[in-house]
Amino acid sequence: MESLKRVVAILEEEGVVEPVGPLLLFRQPQQLQAELDLSLGDAAKEDELWDCLKKITRHSVKTRHPGFLNQLYGGLDEYGLAGELLASALNTNQYTYEVAPSLTLCEMEVIKRALSLVGFNNGDGIFTPGGSISNMYGLVLARYKKYPEIKEKGIAGMPPFVIYTSQDAHYSMTKGSHWLGIGTDNVIKVKTDQRGRMLPSALEEAIELTLAQGKVPMAVNSTAGTTVLGAFDNFQEIADVCEKYGIWMHIDGCWGGSVVFSKKHSRLLKGIERADSFSWNPHKMLGAPLQCSMILVKEKGLLNAANRAGATYLFQQDKMYDVSFDSGDKSVQCGRKTDALKLWTLWKARGDSGLARAVDDTMHLSRYFLEKIRDRIGFKLVLEEFQCTNICFWYIPMRLRNKTEDQAWWEQVHAVAPKLKEKMVLDGCLMIGYQPLDHKNLRNFFRLVITCRPERDEAFIDSVIENIDRLGRDL
Amino acid sequence: MESLKRVVAILEEEGVVEPVGPLLLFRQPQQLQAELDLSLGDAAKEDELWDCLKKITRHSVKTRHPGFLNQLYGGLDEYGLAGELLASALNTNQYTYEVAPSLTLCEMEVIKRALSLVGFNNGDGIFTPGGSISNMYGLVLARYKKYPEIKEKGIAGMPPFVIYTSQDAHYSMTKGSHWLGIGTDNVIKVKTDQRGRMLPSALEEAIELTLAQGKVPMAVNSTAGTTVLGAFDNFQEIADVCEKYGIWMHIDGCWGGSVVFSKKHSRLLKGIERADSFSWNPHKMLGAPLQCSMILVKEKGLLNAANRAGATYLFQQDKMYDVSFDSGDKSVQCGRKTDALKLWTLWKARGDSGLARAVDDTMHLSRYFLEKIRDRIGFKLVLEEFQCTNICFWYIPMRLRNKTEDQAWWEQVHAVAPKLKEKMVLDGCLMIGYQPLDHKNLRNFFRLVITCRPERDEAFIDSVIENIDRLGRDL
Repeated sequence: MESLKRVVAILEEEGVVEPVGPLLLFRQPQQLQAELDLSLGDAAKEDELWDCLKKITRHSVKTRHPGFLNQLYGGLDEYGLAGELLASALNTNQYTYEVAPSLTLCEMEVIKRALSLVGFNNGDGIFTPGGSISNMYGLVLARYKKYPEIKEKGIAGMPPFVIYTSQDAHYSMTKGSHWLGIGTDNVIKVKTDQRGRMLPSALEEAIELTLAQGKVPMAVNSTAGTTVLGAFDNFQEIADVCEKYGIWMHIDGCWGGSVVFSKKHSRLLKGIERADSFSWNPHKMLGAPLQCSMILVKEKGLLNAANRAGATYLFQQDKMYDVSFDSGDKSVQCGRKTDALKLWTLWKARGDSGLARAVDDTMHLSRYFLEKIRDRIGFKLVLEEFQCTNICFWYIPMRLRNKTEDQAWWEQVHAVAPKLKEKMVLDGCLMIGYQPLDHKNLRNFFRLVITCRPERDEAFIDSVIENIDRLGRDL
Repeated sequence: MESLKRVVAILEEEGVVEPVGPLLLFRQPQQLQAELDLSLGDAAKEDELWDCLKKITRHSVKTRHPGFLNQLYGGLDEYGLAGELLASALNTNQYTYEVAPSLTLCEMEVIKRALSLVGFNNGDGIFTPGGSISNMYGLVLARYKKYPEIKEKGIAGMPPFVIYTSQDAHYSMTKGSHWLGIGTDNVIKVKTDQRGRMLPSALEEAIELTLAQGKVPMAVNSTAGTTVLGAFDNFQEIADVCEKYGIWMHIDGCWGGSVVFSKKHSRLLKGIERADSFSWNPHKMLGAPLQCSMILVKEKGLLNAANRAGATYLFQQDKMYDVSFDSGDKSVQCGRKTDALKLWTLWKARGDSGLARAVDDTMHLSRYFLEKIRDRIGFKLVLEEFQCTNICFWYIPMRLRNKTEDQAWWEQVHAVAPKLKEKMVLDGCLMIGYQPLDHKNLRNFFRLVITCRPERDEAFIDSVIENIDRLGRDL
């Protein structure tokens, strides 16, 4: 227990959980390598070890710092972290009730409640190691449901399968389609509207084209909260198309799924109960520790049928308890982390209403940011409309203001983001991600992401705007 | 930080990290559900929450208890747990140097050292969420290396691919082959010898048959430490076959890979440097916290080429640092847990020599157990030879001793294991797994697994034998 207590002391001294000081003490990779003696080989003396762990911590990004607005995670929930530590110390796998009795029941309760929120009333689900793999589960189930014989026979000899996702959807569809043998060329990136929502008419055209080509439409991946613009597809209209053609509908709700708790904002998810599968990462907006991801499935039994291998050394049928409590054969993994406990702890501590409030507050703050920069000199919105807690904007330094917005001007704006990002990082007050969006002809812009974190308020948002201005004005 | 400290207190009070009391307070699932109020909805009062977490802990299996000999993990290393807690609190993803500077360097150091141990001198690797997924990486790379166009085009239209694994190998090959579109029928289970080692001659016959059928041999999965019997394939002979036919050689070293640290036992791994990819789970024998798994690859650049998607919002090329430090595009995942830190901490604390000693001690204790039960009345070895730290045996109660070992007798022995296991669990002193091995016509037998844990000694092993006898004698 001594080691655990020393880590707790480091977390306090370095201000990780209750952040003090800068967000980051940046070092270039080679410089950091020189400063940290990370070499492995001989055993370190106790003091050296702890000194090194302290330095590793000091040169890590404090993702719990309010200024960390860089990714779709951050704002770690303290109860969630407590559950994660407990799960780590219990050090067991989620595959059998035998080795994880209470943790199995925790997973069942969390999945049951999540299914009910999504509206899958007789569904099933498991925790997975992240959203990309949850999305792959959706594709595997789609394929298994249509052609169960593929489990044994494989794809060889079948016609090509086609997956539909939107131009603005997450790249996990691309990576997953390679692994699953579908091929990235068979992932059709359906056109989106200006806000990043999949166009149902374009989806339908794409399906018609597939059919005309003699290929098989396999699954539609719709998105609740796109990675960059935060768009929610129109699930009712997408579901209409999927029903018309009899295609599996998966929803990637990894980012935006958490608004399901909010009475005010859950209208964004209208129609999700018509999907066949749904991915959701509470490690994103809700601040559960990484990794915390679920695949939820409408049809009970399908996860097990698709993934079952019946290993006799794990899933013995002559056990002393009801073996229907063994969840391991629903998974493509063998050992599986007990990720449910952290979400269970967070949820039990906050309650439905606490989580609803957290989502509402976060949506409010993001909208506040958007409204504050809407007419502010030096800021230019990528989208006028509020969609989710990712807010996209360009920052325009003084020298570029009130100029004609021609191609040369945009080239210069494009170059501002990496420079301003560098200034943020070196200053240590802020981290905000940036990217271009080529399919919309958008040059580098910032995407500020707010996740649930009670300590952020309007005054903090005001300070963010001032800091961006302070660092960027003279660039 | 209050929550973390309360968890540390629970871990102390309930004897999780320094185990006291029984291994488990067993409850049947429905009974446990009634005892634990796990229901989610309203926020719990603080006291209720902590009381519930305490009960969850109390009714969890103490996998760090010396009597936990049930799975290929256990014996959690305290330094490893410290690293895990630190990584959890830092709460970031392993995809970019930007958000994980020190942790990126930790991963690089661990991978570099692991590659050197395996003998991949110019290789590459990453951490993955467990051995099944590491093994899938091996298959994906094998396929990509042979037919890179599959990434874009998919498998449809290609001839069937065949994977060779042994009858005794892990079932992840079966599950993985379904996901990857290869199909479980195309996973050939090559015959093994009596000890569970793949027969190179049978492998060669299987390959010839594949070729005669017009299918494509894709990858051979060889095993370092099989799940049940602990067999190490003859890697030199398997490599000869793979070279002869130009087939990718993957080694599943998830379980037995850790003997690489031992001068005395690393001969078991002779020839592994001839493989193309190698999976290794330090969360198994070495006691790193779950999950801690690596895929190691001989050819540098292949992981990135196969998995790369080039998402512009993560892997911007105009960043302020050398972006070759961003490892995320080697992965099929997007967010990826920073699992390297726990292994780095454990390794730095123990050193190569400490880990070698831990492996040697564990091998010694297992062999000690085997020798002690070899001639002991009531115990019957499945294998006479010592292979790894999983020792397989039948327990024969008094009423079945000195009887003719006919089919009826074996039926009764078969029924002993689940009953004796139940007695162990209810007694709380021991957990040892059992299973049949149908392809070897072996009825239910116990598999006792010893993982690295300094607190276990010969006297403890003696007490295990006495406990088995005490609980089983009159069954």
